[in-house]
Amino acid sequence: MTQQATGVPVGEHGQESSYEFDRDTAVRPRPDDPAVFDADLSPGWSISMGLAVNGGYLLALAGRALGAVLPYPDPFSVSGYFLTAATPGPAVVRTEVVRCGGSISTGQASVYQTGADGAEVERLRVIAHYGDLDKLPDEARTTAAPPALPPVEDCAPSAAAPDSIAGPKGRRGLLDRIDLRLDPATVGWAVGKPSGKGEMRGWFALADGREPDPLSLLLAVDAFPPTAFDLGVRGWVPTLELTAHIRARPAPGPLRVCIGTRNLAGGLLEEDAEVWDSAGRLVAQSRQLARADR
Amino acid sequence: MTQQATGVPVGEHGQESSYEFDRDTAVRPRPDDPAVFDADLSPGWSISMGLAVNGGYLLALAGRALGAVLPYPDPFSVSGYFLTAATPGPAVVRTEVVRCGGSISTGQASVYQTGADGAEVERLRVIAHYGDLDKLPDEARTTAAPPALPPVEDCAPSAAAPDSIAGPKGRRGLLDRIDLRLDPATVGWAVGKPSGKGEMRGWFALADGREPDPLSLLLAVDAFPPTAFDLGVRGWVPTLELTAHIRARPAPGPLRVCIGTRNLAGGLLEEDAEVWDSAGRLVAQSRQLARADR
Repeated sequence: MTQQATGVPVGEHGQESSYEFDRDTAVRPRPDDPAVFDADLSPGWSISMGLAVNGGYLLALAGRALGAVLPYPDPFSVSGYFLTAATPGPAVVRTEVVRCGGSISTGQASVYQTGADGAEVERLRVIAHYGDLDKLPDEARTTAAPPALPPVEDCAPSAAAPDSIAGPKGRRGLLDRIDLRLDPATVGWAVGKPSGKGEMRGWFALADGREPDPLSLLLAVDAFPPTAFDLGVRGWVPTLELTAHIRARPAPGPLRVCIGTRNLAGGLLEEDAEVWDSAGRLVAQSRQLARADR
Repeated sequence: MTQQATGVPVGEHGQESSYEFDRDTAVRPRPDDPAVFDADLSPGWSISMGLAVNGGYLLALAGRALGAVLPYPDPFSVSGYFLTAATPGPAVVRTEVVRCGGSISTGQASVYQTGADGAEVERLRVIAHYGDLDKLPDEARTTAAPPALPPVEDCAPSAAAPDSIAGPKGRRGLLDRIDLRLDPATVGWAVGKPSGKGEMRGWFALADGREPDPLSLLLAVDAFPPTAFDLGVRGWVPTLELTAHIRARPAPGPLRVCIGTRNLAGGLLEEDAEVWDSAGRLVAQSRQLARADR
C-alpha cells in the first residue's frame, strides 16, 4: 500500500484503507521534515481501552514510518526497546536512515509523546533491517512444522471471554479488534488451572477482516495473553524488548500462532512466538524479554 | 571489573587484566568526551586472522563501552544490527544514554571504523537494556533443561581441527582463543556428513582460562560453527542481527551451548542459542538472523 497526506494507507483502487489497523497505524510525514511523522495512538489497541497501548501495535506503527523512509518495503528484522508506557493520544515518530545496502536497508525510529510537563518523552526505540520479501529465493530447508491446533470452531474465541476478564464488549480495546481463538489446552489459566508449561496457542485474525501482511505480523506476535498466565503468574507483564523476524509474506487467511516460555527466572521471562500462515509457511518468529510484575 | 585510562579492565587486585578477552575488548574514553571510546579490534577474534572480526566479539566490545556509561553493570538485553564487516584495526565507539530507569537503563552504541577514503563507516549499531543481575530475585520457574552433552573429554576439540578447516595453529584467530568441544553428533558436516537437523552443541571456554561473565556470554552465543553447516550449506553466514538476553551471572567453569536452526528459507536463517553454566543454570539466550551466502 502507498499512503497519502492524511497518513492513512491507500489501497490498490486509490481509496483510503477502511480497516482499523491501517487507520490506527497511519503516520503523517511533516511537510518541513519528511523524516518526522505525526500519529495518533488509538485507544482501541490497549487491553481495556485507555490504558497503555499494546507493544506490537506500537511496533507496527513505528514500522510503518520506517517503511516510508527506507527504500525497501518489508521489515526483515525489527527490534523494539520499550522505554516508558505509551498511552492513547498524539505521538511523534522520528526516523533515521542508518544505511542503504544492495538488498537490505537499516533504519531507526523513536516514538515520543508529550508528558504532563510539556517535555517529549521517548516511549519506544526501534532498529530494523528492511528488504523485499518478494525478492527472496523460494528455497527452504526447514525442520519447523506448524502447531497442531484444533479447528477454529473448537477453540475458545476471545469474543466470548467474560466481562470480568476482558471488560465489557465495545470497550475491550485490543480484544474487540482481534479475533483470537485459543487452543482449549492453553486456556486453563482463565479458570484458575494454568498448565505450568508456559504455552499459548491459537488462531489470530483481525476482527474486521483485514488480511495479514508483514506489518500486522508485528501485532500478531504480541497480541496473545502472556504465557506467564499459563505458568500461574498473574499481573502486568510489560515487554522490555521485542525482536521479530518476518520470514515470508503471509498468505490471506487466519494465522496460527504458538508462544512459549522456557525460563521465568529473576522476575524476567522470554516469550518466543512463531506465526504460520494459512499456506503452512512460517512467516514470523519473535522473542521478547518481559518483566513479570507482581 | 573497573577499568582505567588504558581501557584494559582492572581485576579485584587493581592490576590490569592479563586475559586476551579483556585486553582485546578494552575501550578508552576520550578525555574531552567520555561518551566516545577508542578501541583496537584485534585480529585474534576472526576466523583465520585478518578477515572480518567475529560478531560476538564486536558486540562484547560495544557492550563494555555501554557498561562504562550506564549506571548498571550488566547487559540484560543486547540487540546488535550488523551493517558492514569490521576488520582488525582502530575503531571508535560512540555511546548514548537513552534512559535511566529505576532498575533498568537503556543505551545505544555505534562502532565505527575509518574507510579507505578517510570517512567513518558504521560497522555495528547496538541498543541494550542494562541492569544488575545480582539484584534479581532468586525464584525461577523453568521448563528448560541443559543439553545432554558427552563429557568434555569425549567431545571434538576445536584445537584438533585440521589445518584445512581451521588454518595453521597460532594463526587461527578465534579458534586459538576459545576452547570449543563439539558434541560428536553435531560434527558430521566436517567430514561431509551433515545431520540435516541444523544443530550445534558443545562445551565453550576461553582458551587462556578466563572465567565467563555477562560480557563473555555475548561472545559465547556467536562463537560456534554456523548451524547452516549441519544443514549442508557451506560458505559465509554473515550475521544481520543478533539479540542476546543475559539471564544470570555465570558460575565459573565451562559453559554448555546448544544452537539450533528451525527455518532456513529465502536465503535467511535464524540461529537460536542457549548457554548453560557449570551450575546448570540457563545464563543466556540469543537469536540471530543470518544470511546464507553461496
